[in-house]
Amino acid sequence: MKDIHQLNPGEIRAIIRRRKWDKPTAGLAMGYAQANLVILPQKYAFDFLLFCQRNPKPCPLLEVLEPGEFGTKFLSLDADMRTDIPLYNIYRKGKLGRAVKEIRSLWEKNFVSFLLGCSFSFEEALLRANIPIRHIEENKNVPMFITSISCKPAGIFHGPMVVTMRPIPSEQVTRTVQITSRYAFVHGAPIHIGDPTTIGIKDLRKPDFGDPVTIKKGETPVFWACGVTPQAVVTKARPDLCITHAPGHMFISDLLNEELAVL
Amino acid sequence: MKDIHQLNPGEIRAIIRRRKWDKPTAGLAMGYAQANLVILPQKYAFDFLLFCQRNPKPCPLLEVLEPGEFGTKFLSLDADMRTDIPLYNIYRKGKLGRAVKEIRSLWEKNFVSFLLGCSFSFEEALLRANIPIRHIEENKNVPMFITSISCKPAGIFHGPMVVTMRPIPSEQVTRTVQITSRYAFVHGAPIHIGDPTTIGIKDLRKPDFGDPVTIKKGETPVFWACGVTPQAVVTKARPDLCITHAPGHMFISDLLNEELAVL
Repeated sequence: MKDIHQLNPGEIRAIIRRRKWDKPTAGLAMGYAQANLVILPQKYAFDFLLFCQRNPKPCPLLEVLEPGEFGTKFLSLDADMRTDIPLYNIYRKGKLGRAVKEIRSLWEKNFVSFLLGCSFSFEEALLRANIPIRHIEENKNVPMFITSISCKPAGIFHGPMVVTMRPIPSEQVTRTVQITSRYAFVHGAPIHIGDPTTIGIKDLRKPDFGDPVTIKKGETPVFWACGVTPQAVVTKARPDLCITHAPGHMFISDLLNEELAVL
Repeated sequence: MKDIHQLNPGEIRAIIRRRKWDKPTAGLAMGYAQANLVILPQKYAFDFLLFCQRNPKPCPLLEVLEPGEFGTKFLSLDADMRTDIPLYNIYRKGKLGRAVKEIRSLWEKNFVSFLLGCSFSFEEALLRANIPIRHIEENKNVPMFITSISCKPAGIFHGPMVVTMRPIPSEQVTRTVQITSRYAFVHGAPIHIGDPTTIGIKDLRKPDFGDPVTIKKGETPVFWACGVTPQAVVTKARPDLCITHAPGHMFISDLLNEELAVL
């Protein structure tokens, strides 16, 4: 088998579809947008779509499929939501069960699939501008924090916003805002810069998810809305069933990050 | 009564609510965002919300209310969708009936209200940069055209995109793209620049809606997705009932256009 890092999105999805890859997708198909997945029965679909519309920073919608459809039309013309994610999480009444490699046997014709942007897209853009990404340097998961910022509720869905934190050298914070602002569909501009306590974060060394990273002298913590927010919110709303990607195990699309940039 | 042009959004809405103003809202509450309104029974709401998600340029969602709610929470904390629009259009099975000044007697608790951005917001920004707006100079309605561009269908909703056209001096077209790109929530950047025939427009002197305007030597026609698109689409989908603002008779919000700008 060729090194998976050399393959294009369609080739990687074919490997995932054959259940030959169940690891995280970071670093695969560089340049191409990856997406978070949320699948809900149709009775919850309006509420969740409304939740995303009201909370575009944590829930930037890239594509929503018609009820029952499992093939994307925008992110790829050759993808299957039932098989093309390396690992799926199954939540029943908000409780996380086993992770599975495909969901064909679980598929119901009332399922609605939501694909949301992923910050991998803007991290690439930052690296291209020589802005350091600490968790990549330290080979860790990005640190994530539950904040005191409430998402705007919609129907049954409500909860706090989850954010990622990246320490940025103070003299590069302006450039960081400028670059990430181009990527509104993948969590976009920071939602907070500086003092973590004003958004309810007590200790940057103790993230709620992911790993702590080093903050060096002269660096400012910069916070972005995080794609874990919808999973946290779905867990809280306790729908009968919700299927998501397992964190880090994203859908790899055929769209370039640059095709999603707003300016 | 004070000149309505001197009043703030809340004062103008109070006048509209008392049915003392049923004229277009262009030029009122300068600086504040105005919005298109679409009200549909809940059974169509997911399909229409999905249509807007898939077609953000003609249907830029500013706010969607919960089923039955008539008070906005984002665009204003003191507004009533049943009374605060100068003139409403009523469509039954896609057929336009009488226009009315308020819809309190028609209100049903399954109604879902969608508020969409309006190009008034970016016209102000263009004027501030000394970019001429011909239909304002000539005191006409903006010319609108049905194009050969298909909207992405969603559920029962489908149809062609409607665009507005503004002739721009060629040397100011780049600046026009830059300025309007800031206003993604109010139809944003142009969808087409130059040759009208490539988007199916045969004669710029014969708009499908609105008035023809003068195109001077050295000017390029620039086209933006238009808020009439959802009305055209709703008409085509023929839902049992749909209530919209009458064209030009917009909802006046408490948000400044600058608060909606993306960069």
